[in-house]
Amino acid sequence: MSSASSSSPDSPELRKDHIFNRWVIFSSARSRRPSDLKVHSPTSNPNPKSNTSCPFCAGHEDECAPEIFRVPAGSSVAGWKVRVIENLYPALRRELEPPNSGSDVVCMRGFGFHDVVIETPSHNVRLPDLSDSEIKEVVLAFKERIEQLRRVGSIKYVQVFKNYGATAGASLSHSHSQIIGLPIVPPMVSTRLDSMKEYFDRTGKCGLCDIQLKKILIDESSHFYAIVPFAASNPFEIWIVPRKHASHFYEIDDERAADFGCLLKLMLLKLTLQLNDPPFNFMIHTAPFELPLSSSHSTHWFLQIVPQLHVIGGFETGTACYINAVFPEDAAKILREVKTHK
Amino acid sequence: MSSASSSSPDSPELRKDHIFNRWVIFSSARSRRPSDLKVHSPTSNPNPKSNTSCPFCAGHEDECAPEIFRVPAGSSVAGWKVRVIENLYPALRRELEPPNSGSDVVCMRGFGFHDVVIETPSHNVRLPDLSDSEIKEVVLAFKERIEQLRRVGSIKYVQVFKNYGATAGASLSHSHSQIIGLPIVPPMVSTRLDSMKEYFDRTGKCGLCDIQLKKILIDESSHFYAIVPFAASNPFEIWIVPRKHASHFYEIDDERAADFGCLLKLMLLKLTLQLNDPPFNFMIHTAPFELPLSSSHSTHWFLQIVPQLHVIGGFETGTACYINAVFPEDAAKILREVKTHK
Repeated sequence: MSSASSSSPDSPELRKDHIFNRWVIFSSARSRRPSDLKVHSPTSNPNPKSNTSCPFCAGHEDECAPEIFRVPAGSSVAGWKVRVIENLYPALRRELEPPNSGSDVVCMRGFGFHDVVIETPSHNVRLPDLSDSEIKEVVLAFKERIEQLRRVGSIKYVQVFKNYGATAGASLSHSHSQIIGLPIVPPMVSTRLDSMKEYFDRTGKCGLCDIQLKKILIDESSHFYAIVPFAASNPFEIWIVPRKHASHFYEIDDERAADFGCLLKLMLLKLTLQLNDPPFNFMIHTAPFELPLSSSHSTHWFLQIVPQLHVIGGFETGTACYINAVFPEDAAKILREVKTHK
Repeated sequence: MSSASSSSPDSPELRKDHIFNRWVIFSSARSRRPSDLKVHSPTSNPNPKSNTSCPFCAGHEDECAPEIFRVPAGSSVAGWKVRVIENLYPALRRELEPPNSGSDVVCMRGFGFHDVVIETPSHNVRLPDLSDSEIKEVVLAFKERIEQLRRVGSIKYVQVFKNYGATAGASLSHSHSQIIGLPIVPPMVSTRLDSMKEYFDRTGKCGLCDIQLKKILIDESSHFYAIVPFAASNPFEIWIVPRKHASHFYEIDDERAADFGCLLKLMLLKLTLQLNDPPFNFMIHTAPFELPLSSSHSTHWFLQIVPQLHVIGGFETGTACYINAVFPEDAAKILREVKTHK
């Protein structure tokens, strides 16, 4: 991808994101708007002390929907480190018959899987508070559940995601993430694959293997690097990208899972410190189970972290062009300099 | 498009939106989730009484960026009904040189136009409070400004939009909408055109001319109908669609502008009454100035109103598949039955 331009700080720029095939407007002027309306600050108390009524806490397992599997912890009081359970309020239902798909189908049964990954038995522990070995278990739980859904056969794409804070879509404060297995490949995923293939066909290189890291690198580990992407849609957005080309997240091995977990933890700690514990989402952008061979050289999985710092308005909804008031090089520099005690 | 299916109310469905090429999950179960986190209610006081410091109020014209044109009102104190002005904090800058575009361009100067349409000189008047003739003037101001931007030559697409309420992206409460003229056609717009063309090529009909209205119609006028679309991404989303095939909004004539304004006003009143004055966005989805002849039979402009009732989480961000807890047929029935004194 391209390096940054040399425009003056106040001069807006349009940048093309070749992964998602969208344009982003960078305009620092937008950050100076006055307002006579207040957007309430995000609920900055996402883990209330009280856990007496929390179904995700140790000891409340029988208040949850059925467990799919757990990572046991023999010596602890809870008896588990991570639990993967069914979502009690699922968007899609696993007991329905898988629908037939086809290009002209406009309506199908809502078959699919909607699971919850309870990342810790403790109510007051956030994901970045986990130890290195504990966060590795969360990453491996994602991997294991995706592998299970792959064996179902009628699931075509799996979205792993986390909503942290009410304004990022979380309804319960106990640290958790979610996994939805879909009977379709979302068109946005197809667009990403097509866009990355177009880049490959034009340049002979995978768009993520080819990234120029110099100005946008935040940190790196043995197997991953963390960047603010050149055309980040959101201020302080972070991508964690495998150094070695890989299409499917679920192929991650134990060593890389540990390495990935540590870098994810570090990035979440940096966001927490720099942006005062902001609400955020993260999403793992991986390949559909059935990936055409012609797309395997161009499809490279990554994790995207989006702190929820600004409101989406009609322009973004109508065009999918985001307006970002913080240039990626500036955000990367700021995040590089945040010191954590890792 | 297809009519609704006959699933039981509790059975989720996946529906394909053939206009935007995306899937929507309908799941009424999602509305029953408990929460220990609160999303603050939208600021329900979008028009504070005080207007002493509002730059959009009559008498404060010199506090605004330059005026582009106004709709005069000879007899009123303000001397104007509608003003179209430059945005003081523009996302794009009109004084920059238009950039060269091309398929491999990744970064360009932020040239473009970002204007504000002040819909009324009065601080405490909302868009649906305007008289029929006043809202017609707002619609005609959109039309006139788009025609001006068309003559610029280097502008390829114009997005007209309104953000109402802080959680929908508004920063000032005085009733206004915005117009952004872009030097590119956003890929989301190209996707919409391609998706509508694909429908046309497959069926021989324009996807919006072909809509089955029976269960999703809210109301209609001489030249437009208002529906909750079959695969609405958001609860109580409304589309206002011209009855007669038309690709470009700016070709609207005086009679249709008046008719359109009245139906828009009615829909906003219904949302206000039913959903307690919710924050919302509206967007006019029209054609790029240069529309290939092959797309003219399939490209049909419309206005989309999205009440901001729920939070977008990681699943929606990662897949562009929205989860909607209200089936369109139910939302249409509820909105049909809301009585306004029109």
